[in-house]
Amino acid sequence: MSKDWLDMIKWDDRGLVPAIAQEMGSGKVLMLSWMNRESLQLTRKTGHAVYWSRSRNALWHKGEASGHWQVVHAIQVDCDADVVLLEVEQKGSIACHTGRHNCFFRELHADQWVEIAPVLKDPDTIYNQS
Amino acid sequence: MSKDWLDMIKWDDRGLVPAIAQEMGSGKVLMLSWMNRESLQLTRKTGHAVYWSRSRNALWHKGEASGHWQVVHAIQVDCDADVVLLEVEQKGSIACHTGRHNCFFRELHADQWVEIAPVLKDPDTIYNQS
Repeated sequence: MSKDWLDMIKWDDRGLVPAIAQEMGSGKVLMLSWMNRESLQLTRKTGHAVYWSRSRNALWHKGEASGHWQVVHAIQVDCDADVVLLEVEQKGSIACHTGRHNCFFRELHADQWVEIAPVLKDPDTIYNQS
Repeated sequence: MSKDWLDMIKWDDRGLVPAIAQEMGSGKVLMLSWMNRESLQLTRKTGHAVYWSRSRNALWHKGEASGHWQVVHAIQVDCDADVVLLEVEQKGSIACHTGRHNCFFRELHADQWVEIAPVLKDPDTIYNQS
């Protein structure tokens, strides 16, 4: 498998790019994580989202512990080649380690952050921490 | 106007967070840019997306030169409070400085990046560079 496509990405000084996971169908933005070269290559190879955990300094096969995989249907890159957008199918419905469907569950209303999405699953049962 | 809501954001070591602009209605992810505290505050205050240009080290009132404003209908923050998601209405249809509707116009097909969206406007006429 040619890896030339990976050379086009402009990795930052830590060797990372932001990767947005967008849900196929609903169009909902589930989360933003980070990828290094190896994680993007593994994502391509396995068809499942693999990120780079900045807190653990390690590859993060999302769903490995929780079963909440992200099946990747498309990989896109932006004009500057420094942001990746994944079209994903979220297995188990829970993308967020807080037990919510997606990570963007707080919205600004009159200078207050208001929770706009419910917890669907006890976070202690998820093991989905990045 | 209370600014407590800004204190909740976890700015990175450069004082920035990634900000995703998602189009209202279509759900299309238009672009990812960066914001500092001042740009997010201005976005809230003006109702138009204001980013931080890392290349120019300056505030970037998107659309100021091109007329391609982003009217901001919602501001959300993720679980770790280090990513912002904007729901926007893209004036003039062109979010990308290449003259395309959005910045994610290349998709990986069999290890090749393939252009999947047309240029709608001559980029030299846009003055939309970040």
